[in-house]
Amino acid sequence: MKKNVKIEFKCVLKDVLEILGGKWAIPIIYVLFDGTKRFKELERNIPNINTRMLVKELKKLEAANIISRKAYPTVPPTVEYSLTVKGKKLQPIILSLYKWGEENVDL
Amino acid sequence: MKKNVKIEFKCVLKDVLEILGGKWAIPIIYVLFDGTKRFKELERNIPNINTRMLVKELKKLEAANIISRKAYPTVPPTVEYSLTVKGKKLQPIILSLYKWGEENVDL
Repeated sequence: MKKNVKIEFKCVLKDVLEILGGKWAIPIIYVLFDGTKRFKELERNIPNINTRMLVKELKKLEAANIISRKAYPTVPPTVEYSLTVKGKKLQPIILSLYKWGEENVDL
Repeated sequence: MKKNVKIEFKCVLKDVLEILGGKWAIPIIYVLFDGTKRFKELERNIPNINTRMLVKELKKLEAANIISRKAYPTVPPTVEYSLTVKGKKLQPIILSLYKWGEENVDL
């Protein structure tokens, strides 16, 4: 791999990891593969995550345009989260990570 | 996806992320795609990593059998790191992460 291609490769990978590398990004994305979820549904489906962490991570994923957020003027207000087209493209990658884990990680 | 399959999926994914999710695991693995490297070569090729972090991460990757470590009785001693078969299987996944990043992350 030529030098400048390597540098560019590293920058892209670094940016991807900044978005996806944390402990909670991939679990949140994974839960949304099933479709749109409300905040409480997300919180229930991700073991050990607390409200503050979930709020923070959802903001990060929304800013990276991996998820979209829709608020409804109900009382109390309802907020729903879904994967964007960009987010849905991660499904095969996360499934291949899972497959690698199944074959290579001793539970 | 049935309930118990979902739970198992999450456990495997959680274990994979524990190994690969940190800031430095994938960059280290990526540098080793080029072949066996010495400690100093790894340190030089991974921007912003310090010695303590590199030592810690290499131990974690070795314990997970993703990399192998070989020490030579030279003076001073020489230590080389390489990807195991398990580690090399990550290459297509990391390349697909890179491709997703190239298409979807605004640098």
